Amino acid sequence: MNTVTIVGVGLIGGSFALGLKKNGFTGRILGVSSERTIAAARELGVIDEGLSLEQAVPQADLVYLAQPISRILEALPRVAELAKPSALVTDAGSTKRAIVARASEVFGEGHSIFLGGHPMAGKAVRGVQAAEADLLRDATYVLTPPGAAMPLDERVGRFGEWLGKLGARVVVMDPAAHDQLVAFTSHLPQMAATALASLLLDELSWPDSWRVAGAGLRDMTRLAGSAYELWRDIAMTNGDNINRALARYIQSLEHVRENLRTRALEDEFQRGGHFVTRLGRAGGGSV
Amino acid sequence: MNTVTIVGVGLIGGSFALGLKKNGFTGRILGVSSERTIAAARELGVIDEGLSLEQAVPQADLVYLAQPISRILEALPRVAELAKPSALVTDAGSTKRAIVARASEVFGEGHSIFLGGHPMAGKAVRGVQAAEADLLRDATYVLTPPGAAMPLDERVGRFGEWLGKLGARVVVMDPAAHDQLVAFTSHLPQMAATALASLLLDELSWPDSWRVAGAGLRDMTRLAGSAYELWRDIAMTNGDNINRALARYIQSLEHVRENLRTRALEDEFQRGGHFVTRLGRAGGGSV
Repeated sequence: MNTVTIVGVGLIGGSFALGLKKNGFTGRILGVSSERTIAAARELGVIDEGLSLEQAVPQADLVYLAQPISRILEALPRVAELAKPSALVTDAGSTKRAIVARASEVFGEGHSIFLGGHPMAGKAVRGVQAAEADLLRDATYVLTPPGAAMPLDERVGRFGEWLGKLGARVVVMDPAAHDQLVAFTSHLPQMAATALASLLLDELSWPDSWRVAGAGLRDMTRLAGSAYELWRDIAMTNGDNINRALARYIQSLEHVRENLRTRALEDEFQRGGHFVTRLGRAGGGSV
Repeated sequence: MNTVTIVGVGLIGGSFALGLKKNGFTGRILGVSSERTIAAARELGVIDEGLSLEQAVPQADLVYLAQPISRILEALPRVAELAKPSALVTDAGSTKRAIVARASEVFGEGHSIFLGGHPMAGKAVRGVQAAEADLLRDATYVLTPPGAAMPLDERVGRFGEWLGKLGARVVVMDPAAHDQLVAFTSHLPQMAATALASLLLDELSWPDSWRVAGAGLRDMTRLAGSAYELWRDIAMTNGDNINRALARYIQSLEHVRENLRTRALEDEFQRGGHFVTRLGRAGGGSV
């Protein structure tokens, strides 16, 4: 692996590049991004050179697509055409079915191969300025080969080794299983926070009411500060699963509501406490 | 104010006592609690002496009720009988209508006076061992005289001065307005976290799924670790408001669910982001 091309040099793409450099990668790292981002990324030592997609992809042994989901979907056909047959193309999009399906249409015989990925890492701040060489350290990194069967291909093995050097913990999952799971662990919490914050914007109608808000409410609404542009793409490509997860959550809330004065509330609190304990033991990602 | 009696020497009662001592109170602080708690509280210098309710309340100029809500409701008639006519009785219960209503039945002509309160402060850990002299510093402290009109009484004035010395920020509110507001700012977030955690306990059914959980999910379920015993009392005494808040929240979630693929989702994210910004500016309490 001599040349890596990062398409979308933001927090994730930039952190992957810095992680490679910190952990012994001595080849070249090319970046494809806006002019302003390329200037910042070069100044920060994240990439060696900024080029167009047409110039950068044909040179790469590894193409790392780290744009928003809709941009990855748009770029895939062109990337499949441009990449050399010996290359591995991977992505960092946070839903996987749509991307893996699109890739299976455009990558074929005699082409480079595609492997979907989802690094479960992030920060409140976006952009290449926030990139860190250790962002993926101890983070779960989901790889989503179709059918959850890792291709027996040395390029895939080599990419997995680099993820290991960066400290990521690889989990292999079918794209559909991934999307169903993150609908509950990531997309539902986001929608729950947004719906709560939006409701409370009306309810906290007089100035003193804001002073009554405490740390619990802050925890429960923090995610509502997330950028819509990212979530539009997630909702578009995982709407069916998010819809089902929201329906289940509404059922769970109805159950609590009907049992505010019965012992069933105690069961819910016990189950909730049990969840928090198990989650605490699980350790894991930072987003 | 020479003698203060703390009934229920836990995190809040103990922190109030330590705060008084740190901020120049030179009188005696009596404690009413279990034998084990009294021993710990004396060792930690939180109280000067542990006594029974019957011994401690008649000596007090200020009686500070800091037990769980149901225990406050039980104790009120006896406290009203025992307290000297010149005393002020106050409480730290986290719902206010039931307590203030019960107090208005048992405190009358020739009795001490009662003023309901709710310090918006806390910690993940409970008990007198966790008490801190500065727990109330910069925390919102709601006082709930009926009709939100502070009684023109020098005992009330003096108590308010002590709260000021402890660094608390007093907000005056009608008991009904308080209970309605905290149903949204505190009780709804709790129930939302419990319902989410309880649901996810079923959904995260295979081991790797726990590794996919990130910081957002941790934020959104942290409150589910709260103790049921406290919440049973809150649900019992504020069930009507919590029920209404949950109904509104379910509506808000249905709205998000119906608009996952429309521009209305963008509005919800904008409102959510606006809420987070305003909450950030509001500063305030720690629970």
